[in-house]
Amino acid sequence: MKEAQRRVAEGILFTDFYQLTMAQLYYRTGLHEKTVQFDHFFRDYPDYGAHKAGYCVNAGLEWLLDWMAEAHLTADDIEYLRGQRGRTGERLFADDFLRWLGANGTFDGLTLHAIPEGRVVHPNVPLTVVQGPMVPAQLLETSLLNHLNYQTLIATKAARMHFSGRGRLLLEFGVRRGHDRGANAGTRAALIGGADFSSNVGISRVLGYPPKGTHAHSMVQVFMALGMGELGAFRAYADLYPDDCLLLVDTIDTLGSGIPNAITVFEELRRKGHEPVGIRLDSGDLAYLSIQAAKMLNDAGFPNTTIVLSNNLDELVIWQIITQIRDEAPRWGLDADHLIKQLAFGAGTRLITSWGEPALGGVYKLVAVCDNGRWVPAIKLSDSPDKTPNPGHKRVWRVYDERGKATADLLSLEDEDPRAADRLVLRHPSDHTKYRALPRQEVSEIEPLLVEVLREGRLVYDLPTIEDMRALRRADTERLDPGVQRLVNPHIYHVSLTQALWDLKQSLIDSAVAQSQ
Amino acid sequence: MKEAQRRVAEGILFTDFYQLTMAQLYYRTGLHEKTVQFDHFFRDYPDYGAHKAGYCVNAGLEWLLDWMAEAHLTADDIEYLRGQRGRTGERLFADDFLRWLGANGTFDGLTLHAIPEGRVVHPNVPLTVVQGPMVPAQLLETSLLNHLNYQTLIATKAARMHFSGRGRLLLEFGVRRGHDRGANAGTRAALIGGADFSSNVGISRVLGYPPKGTHAHSMVQVFMALGMGELGAFRAYADLYPDDCLLLVDTIDTLGSGIPNAITVFEELRRKGHEPVGIRLDSGDLAYLSIQAAKMLNDAGFPNTTIVLSNNLDELVIWQIITQIRDEAPRWGLDADHLIKQLAFGAGTRLITSWGEPALGGVYKLVAVCDNGRWVPAIKLSDSPDKTPNPGHKRVWRVYDERGKATADLLSLEDEDPRAADRLVLRHPSDHTKYRALPRQEVSEIEPLLVEVLREGRLVYDLPTIEDMRALRRADTERLDPGVQRLVNPHIYHVSLTQALWDLKQSLIDSAVAQSQ
Repeated sequence: MKEAQRRVAEGILFTDFYQLTMAQLYYRTGLHEKTVQFDHFFRDYPDYGAHKAGYCVNAGLEWLLDWMAEAHLTADDIEYLRGQRGRTGERLFADDFLRWLGANGTFDGLTLHAIPEGRVVHPNVPLTVVQGPMVPAQLLETSLLNHLNYQTLIATKAARMHFSGRGRLLLEFGVRRGHDRGANAGTRAALIGGADFSSNVGISRVLGYPPKGTHAHSMVQVFMALGMGELGAFRAYADLYPDDCLLLVDTIDTLGSGIPNAITVFEELRRKGHEPVGIRLDSGDLAYLSIQAAKMLNDAGFPNTTIVLSNNLDELVIWQIITQIRDEAPRWGLDADHLIKQLAFGAGTRLITSWGEPALGGVYKLVAVCDNGRWVPAIKLSDSPDKTPNPGHKRVWRVYDERGKATADLLSLEDEDPRAADRLVLRHPSDHTKYRALPRQEVSEIEPLLVEVLREGRLVYDLPTIEDMRALRRADTERLDPGVQRLVNPHIYHVSLTQALWDLKQSLIDSAVAQSQ
Repeated sequence: MKEAQRRVAEGILFTDFYQLTMAQLYYRTGLHEKTVQFDHFFRDYPDYGAHKAGYCVNAGLEWLLDWMAEAHLTADDIEYLRGQRGRTGERLFADDFLRWLGANGTFDGLTLHAIPEGRVVHPNVPLTVVQGPMVPAQLLETSLLNHLNYQTLIATKAARMHFSGRGRLLLEFGVRRGHDRGANAGTRAALIGGADFSSNVGISRVLGYPPKGTHAHSMVQVFMALGMGELGAFRAYADLYPDDCLLLVDTIDTLGSGIPNAITVFEELRRKGHEPVGIRLDSGDLAYLSIQAAKMLNDAGFPNTTIVLSNNLDELVIWQIITQIRDEAPRWGLDADHLIKQLAFGAGTRLITSWGEPALGGVYKLVAVCDNGRWVPAIKLSDSPDKTPNPGHKRVWRVYDERGKATADLLSLEDEDPRAADRLVLRHPSDHTKYRALPRQEVSEIEPLLVEVLREGRLVYDLPTIEDMRALRRADTERLDPGVQRLVNPHIYHVSLTQALWDLKQSLIDSAVAQSQ
């Protein structure tokens, strides 16, 4: 796509067409300036097939805010809409509506509350709450979901890989397998969720992280084709980067050629007063090869070099590699803990695409309409009760138990403050038989999660840095019960309603059912 | 991301860092201007878990060319690279290299051959062939793969959904679940592969397609919250769009409320001289609800309305719905073929993310280096023989049998022309026991697939329109054997080598193995 086209395709028209046909309907029926509230939330954790997440890491908000600040309808966009025709050839959008839209098609009037990026989040909890006039609030839906769904998905995957890698260095390598420019958003989210660095130069620069990388197989191949062999390639690399020498050893034969040649070069480096960094393994049985490589490097006097592993890594593969090293390394005379400390992980395809579950099902649902100054909660019924959104204005609280671990997220009505209650009643959002009562003394903290971000379009929030977000993620994951952090079959974290919100929801369901009879 | 940051992150620095560290190594060792050839190909069809593709549809080239034409290193980029430091604090990139890179860091010298977008393609066949000086050819890798992997993946998924939907209207609805801006590339690829229209306004505009869409659940909810009910919402919609009235009928209760209300509005429309378009079903058992909806609409005198189905559709779900309608519709007194002709499909998440396999494993491999005017083929060994790339300059041919069906893709040496041979020998790329001999009279056509696109950076190719690409895709899928088109367990299409190319590959493998001893 050419740059000029990109400006058209990524501006305010980066939306679904029905947002515009509905906008005209609201205009025509006088509802366009009614104040409404939409909640953004996801309904379930990513399910990767053989495993499923027990928590997500929230991400994407800042880029959404950037988009909202820059997106506006141009005269050219209005002309384009004027040319849209229905199936009998009639114009779809009338001049009076387009005039109004041209003057009002920005997000300047919206108020937005959100849970900060980097925080651990759970299903059916409003992550983003949008209030304001009907048309801009509705028009925001598509882009909001596009921005927040993907980054939350990838931050979550990165958090899982960071966890399964025991916090060893995690490098994001996925730009070639990312979905077009989406790769940049994926890198950002991976850094928030748990990756430490990325190979992607441009976005690393934008975010203030040094990009990482050494060399590819092709470099070794060129030297081979010209008769200088793998050893020649390694020597050339070590000459140029004597203090940053990390060699890819699997172009020909890892144990038979790559590692012996690397050791030769490492010895030459050391004689010149430089310490080698390490090796990268990109194919084969990574657990077995790690052990054999470590053994050869140990025997040669390089017991502390880094061993970077890559090739279709995800949280289960990393888990398997570490488990196997723990079991097998001692049989080869190696200290497993020491070897695990030498490891670093390069994650490409399976991180940037969230392999197994490449989309988060985040939705944006109307939950209240202001009618003559009075807020009316809105409901949408669903065949499955757990898909019926929680209606109306709400507050979101995180409840910590006596150990300081998060035990539940609690949704309350706007005017409730559970911090003032002696006893918390936590009701299941749809199953009336399930609830839990918590005496206040068993609760160490009740924390509100939503912060005000935009007040009628004006930024009233200090945007955190990526490092701030990483610190939030670390703090929140430390306060998760270990059962919730499990890679496979995690405990189910409770997301509950207060009694008052539960009662409101039931009464709305009853009246909607009655309306439909 | 802000617009100014986007220009940094999506320009020439949209690459992996190792491309730059290798560039300096080539510069330092005098290899930077050596002419080389890289082949881009994928190794296997997308494997969706329960099913697997038997062919792919090539896509993404034009956007890669756009990127290549606009990407160049700015003085600012050079300053950024000057600031990169290694682990002991020394600068990674030297001034002389950066001066040379600043003057030579464009793709102006590259020659590129490619298989056109929209064509059916197969594993291990070069889809894109890049020749030119080492540094720009290497530097192109990351962005080339990013552009081509994703669009080919999605064009393939769309072709499968188009096939399983019996060619009924296929609408792409996925922008909210796409990977950030990658959604636009996905829409383009879906249109090439088999989607007819998209809901995504901006990219539809850029590509010259009218965007499609009607209304969301939220519109019905607003009317309900304000006491005007679903019927009020439908009436307002029909008043505004009398000739384009397609109603979403599952906000409350599809059969109990949505369809009866839609019929009421349709009857009112008809009395005013307008024909309704149809309904959309977005939840529940879509096969059952299609049948019941069609029956109710038939009985009310609307036997030809469109029934749009959406909600997590993919090729297997569509196949199941159509199969079930075929089985069940007659028991409800309906003509199944007629009902199937009423259907249209809205595909969101599972199309835009290629559900089941969210990445295509396309790679970019060095296959030849020009040394003192002589081309030297390059090889990279692999533990699995089928992963060893086919070396050297090659031509790509498609061989059609007596029925006019494609029977194999054949890779030959540059100077071979199988059209001149009496008898074709098709060798399996890695298994020496497998080959096939075809007498020339059993072959109806031998077609070269690669076209010249860039000659030393200059465009020498008439870029086809999306409609041209769609026509290529239709023609190519019609010439596939039905077994290859199967959704589940497709026949394996043959990708073969000529005897001469097979001999070259073997001799290179032998000498690489000898070098590594």
